[in-house]
Amino acid sequence: MSIVLGPNQYGKAEVRLVRVDRDTARHRVTDLNITSQLRGDFRATHETGDNTGVIATDTQKNTVQAFARDGVGSPETFLLRLARHFLVEPQVTGGRWRAEQYGWERIATGTPGADGGPGHDHAFVRGAAERRTALVHADDAGLTVLAGLSDVTVLKSTGSEFSGFPRDRYTTLPETDDRILATDVTAWWRYDASFAEAAGPADYDERFAAVRALLLTTFAELHSLALQQSVYAMGSAVLEAFGDIAEIRLSCPNNHHFLVDLEPFGLDNPGEVFFAAGRPYGLIEAAVQRSGPDGQTGPEHPVWSTIGGFV
Amino acid sequence: MSIVLGPNQYGKAEVRLVRVDRDTARHRVTDLNITSQLRGDFRATHETGDNTGVIATDTQKNTVQAFARDGVGSPETFLLRLARHFLVEPQVTGGRWRAEQYGWERIATGTPGADGGPGHDHAFVRGAAERRTALVHADDAGLTVLAGLSDVTVLKSTGSEFSGFPRDRYTTLPETDDRILATDVTAWWRYDASFAEAAGPADYDERFAAVRALLLTTFAELHSLALQQSVYAMGSAVLEAFGDIAEIRLSCPNNHHFLVDLEPFGLDNPGEVFFAAGRPYGLIEAAVQRSGPDGQTGPEHPVWSTIGGFV
Amino acid sequence: MSIVLGPNQYGKAEVRLVRVDRDTARHRVTDLNITSQLRGDFRATHETGDNTGVIATDTQKNTVQAFARDGVGSPETFLLRLARHFLVEPQVTGGRWRAEQYGWERIATGTPGADGGPGHDHAFVRGAAERRTALVHADDAGLTVLAGLSDVTVLKSTGSEFSGFPRDRYTTLPETDDRILATDVTAWWRYDASFAEAAGPADYDERFAAVRALLLTTFAELHSLALQQSVYAMGSAVLEAFGDIAEIRLSCPNNHHFLVDLEPFGLDNPGEVFFAAGRPYGLIEAAVQRSGPDGQTGPEHPVWSTIGGFV
Amino acid sequence: MSIVLGPNQYGKAEVRLVRVDRDTARHRVTDLNITSQLRGDFRATHETGDNTGVIATDTQKNTVQAFARDGVGSPETFLLRLARHFLVEPQVTGGRWRAEQYGWERIATGTPGADGGPGHDHAFVRGAAERRTALVHADDAGLTVLAGLSDVTVLKSTGSEFSGFPRDRYTTLPETDDRILATDVTAWWRYDASFAEAAGPADYDERFAAVRALLLTTFAELHSLALQQSVYAMGSAVLEAFGDIAEIRLSCPNNHHFLVDLEPFGLDNPGEVFFAAGRPYGLIEAAVQRSGPDGQTGPEHPVWSTIGGFV
Repeated sequence: MSIVLGPNQYGKAEVRLVRVDRDTARHRVTDLNITSQLRGDFRATHETGDNTGVIATDTQKNTVQAFARDGVGSPETFLLRLARHFLVEPQVTGGRWRAEQYGWERIATGTPGADGGPGHDHAFVRGAAERRTALVHADDAGLTVLAGLSDVTVLKSTGSEFSGFPRDRYTTLPETDDRILATDVTAWWRYDASFAEAAGPADYDERFAAVRALLLTTFAELHSLALQQSVYAMGSAVLEAFGDIAEIRLSCPNNHHFLVDLEPFGLDNPGEVFFAAGRPYGLIEAAVQRSGPDGQTGPEHPVWSTIGGFV
Repeated sequence: MSIVLGPNQYGKAEVRLVRVDRDTARHRVTDLNITSQLRGDFRATHETGDNTGVIATDTQKNTVQAFARDGVGSPETFLLRLARHFLVEPQVTGGRWRAEQYGWERIATGTPGADGGPGHDHAFVRGAAERRTALVHADDAGLTVLAGLSDVTVLKSTGSEFSGFPRDRYTTLPETDDRILATDVTAWWRYDASFAEAAGPADYDERFAAVRALLLTTFAELHSLALQQSVYAMGSAVLEAFGDIAEIRLSCPNNHHFLVDLEPFGLDNPGEVFFAAGRPYGLIEAAVQRSGPDGQTGPEHPVWSTIGGFV
Repeated sequence: MSIVLGPNQYGKAEVRLVRVDRDTARHRVTDLNITSQLRGDFRATHETGDNTGVIATDTQKNTVQAFARDGVGSPETFLLRLARHFLVEPQVTGGRWRAEQYGWERIATGTPGADGGPGHDHAFVRGAAERRTALVHADDAGLTVLAGLSDVTVLKSTGSEFSGFPRDRYTTLPETDDRILATDVTAWWRYDASFAEAAGPADYDERFAAVRALLLTTFAELHSLALQQSVYAMGSAVLEAFGDIAEIRLSCPNNHHFLVDLEPFGLDNPGEVFFAAGRPYGLIEAAVQRSGPDGQTGPEHPVWSTIGGFV
Repeated sequence: MSIVLGPNQYGKAEVRLVRVDRDTARHRVTDLNITSQLRGDFRATHETGDNTGVIATDTQKNTVQAFARDGVGSPETFLLRLARHFLVEPQVTGGRWRAEQYGWERIATGTPGADGGPGHDHAFVRGAAERRTALVHADDAGLTVLAGLSDVTVLKSTGSEFSGFPRDRYTTLPETDDRILATDVTAWWRYDASFAEAAGPADYDERFAAVRALLLTTFAELHSLALQQSVYAMGSAVLEAFGDIAEIRLSCPNNHHFLVDLEPFGLDNPGEVFFAAGRPYGLIEAAVQRSGPDGQTGPEHPVWSTIGGFV
């Protein structure tokens, strides 16, 4: 038995790239945080510090920046360009490229823009704290594209219950038929290969918007008996609507809002005054998948082991 | 010469209060982070641990929660209620009550709500990371009301220059006639006493929205020769528009976006590819005030020493 | 083909538990952040909101707190107790229990303590920002114990080179034979079953201290030709020293410290003045494993897919 | 009445400077985060974007880095050098220079270092999360030096009570004669001019260490009837010990540790199992000063209005 190098990857993380499209007076801003990681035959650098095959992480950063000169398109297509570039090197047999995108909205000024549309041509205000995410994974089986979103904070002020759970020695939680349900949705969905190969930037952008809207609508409209039920319904709705999404995974904290007991002050509290607790929080994580004719879902796709945290 | 207790204050910080107005099926959510601090004759607890006069910070928290039972109104009016309540105690001669408010938007579902308006009746998504702020200060001279906003992140992709600055031994920055200008606006404005006394929740809400819009529009429309110029213009615009705002203070980091040098890769970069640096950042802070007939602005209002950081 | 629930888990995250051992005047403080997540047959709650089998996350929190009444021991043994408790329920077929531990040191006062030792008996100051971590994973194959550490920030001011890497169109990084090497070490090591079954709290504590010391010493003493080499050496040293550790994984950002160019100011800079960059950063991740007689390492242990991020 | 520029300052914030002293094989590392802000006649840039007098924030950063070439000494003396440099410019009439310092300890390797001392010569591990701070303030009256510390997290597991406070309609907190007392100490102390003028780097370093030790010892040894009492005792101890410290201000959150009610589980809890709450927290802030023969403390020193938050 001897000691050997196992799975490994390396790269440059969190390259903050802002691309301005200024071909007309009506600018567009694309604001990204990009991480590039390579896998392959990098045993020499680990064992002896021989860097002959090591594409420097600084070079990876430069490549990200240089590629942006031609435009970004969608985060998914930009990451695919990066992946294909690095995979040309023989020692690179796989990798992982990831992007977070921050939203910007045009500042409303009352004056029409260069194209007659609303909002300022080149002044922007940052939108919600939520982020759009994308990930391209490469291994021997080829390229896989995930899209996702992070920290979409949502809240229902009614239409949520939690009851019927077992009561053991350590159970004190009362049942409730009306509570606040709040979470920060993080989701990743995997496109099947046919979509990923054919889609252009506009397809990815449009699809992202459609999935985000569907997740929110489903959260809003389901009368929820458990956060698990909401999470599963959100995932199912996406798979039902889009046949070319192979599976989706969601990770949703239960951001507890406790009804404040106002009785000591001689007051009732009919679902109006809440304390928003920070920690601890519930944490609900689930994959929604497609089964084959045999009812089985097949082995786990290797991309998920690189995401971590919720399987 | 002897050792004595100087200025002091104490209270409960960051009470996370969520209030749901549910008198109709169309709920409203008010999401606040409230800090209550008292000043006065608290020498005994400091010197000997005699707590006879100490209104417990837990009691201050309870009071915040109990008062929310009657509704919040605007953050400014809610803080004024708290201030007046605590100031009744003889040992309390002053204090400071502060709120941050987080924005929620109705989830768009395509179905009209209970009042026929757009968006879901009781499902919400968190808006921008920016926060609305409010502060009530009490001292012997009475109550002072500040309103503000924090972390309104804005960016201009052109329309910003920086040149003409002196060059000494340590100057390497090139002049530029076209750069990205980006900042996170934090502002506090002080209402004069006449506005503060007369205003109801709707007045405060409306005024907040108007000041926010004016700050953004001014940032967008000014061709900027320095972030200082933008900051001063933003503050001036507010004072010009609203005679009952006595002064305004702004603190604005210069979130540097450096044009990436693509020449080593045989590429030009006509203002398109930027690196968004984190630290260090410029930091521009200024007050805009009104002068009297003698051109003087009078002594600094004591509320500012409790804000800190930018005077 | 139909839509089905895939892998899922749920629980309570970040239960902040502080346990004081006060059987003598010389108190001991154990400060933990604990997450409990269950896996098993939870289809009903996802599909229909039937919570009959759902051990409430609040109950999981209560259980953590109640179990602490008997003492914590080491984080590993405490998590094992929790795991075994929840696994008794028939619907629970697996799970994941995780702890972070924060260090406290006795405040030095010059007076000997109740046991004659140095430092105050019941007053403590928080130590380094680094955290000790532990994780127990349960699946059909039984229990697996990981131990680890997070954010152990280390720096070498010399004894680090980086050269010999390939130069392509996008390479601008100069080679260097003397640089600062700095990282925040995150590591997880997996105990083999024999150690995990036999070890008591003192064994886990002692082993943690020994592995931490070995990681640091190896980082310090290796003349580093690449961060990859340091990472691999650190992992190898642990496997060499401790036969009952099956494998170790490390994730190490390269916290770049750039030598400042002082030439414009007429100054040299012989490795003395550095700018500590934040983002982007390099990111080096590797597993160090044991191979069998055939040189193969066997399939990936399922625990790793729950860690994420660095395989 | 017209609109005018009020107080203002600008500069470069958070210059992360790492200085390695390598005159012998036994290196020393000084790790600082420095902010430089200037005040003076900067009306032109605000009103018209005329930058003739504006020492660029980039130049301020360069100056920080260039000055480090000669060594840092102590943070206080380094900031004084910067202040005196910038104050030479006629348009600069004041300013504010601030530093945070991060601690590094030598990695223990068992081998004596180049000077025979313990720990590695050039490999370091980051110490506690706490930071040493320093601030130099310049105005017409000259230079003022503050020293301080931030986020020194301390905890007493007994020796703390809280009772005797008034009970009103909103009071529910029970009295307690044994609780955990925990806080993150932030303190700033002001040296009188005679110390500030005469002190060299070693004096500042030694004094910092002595004040820190005294703050911790006092926290540890006082049987506390209120956090206010502990805070005042800590401040008083410093003024008593060091005649050349003019005043000290402390800001201390009360990091609540709530005794968990284990009765529902049939267990007692004699001060052993606690829940460490995050928000809300108490917040205790006080200045400790010297009074003159008339018992008065004189007007507030202008430096404090630039610190903010706790007076």
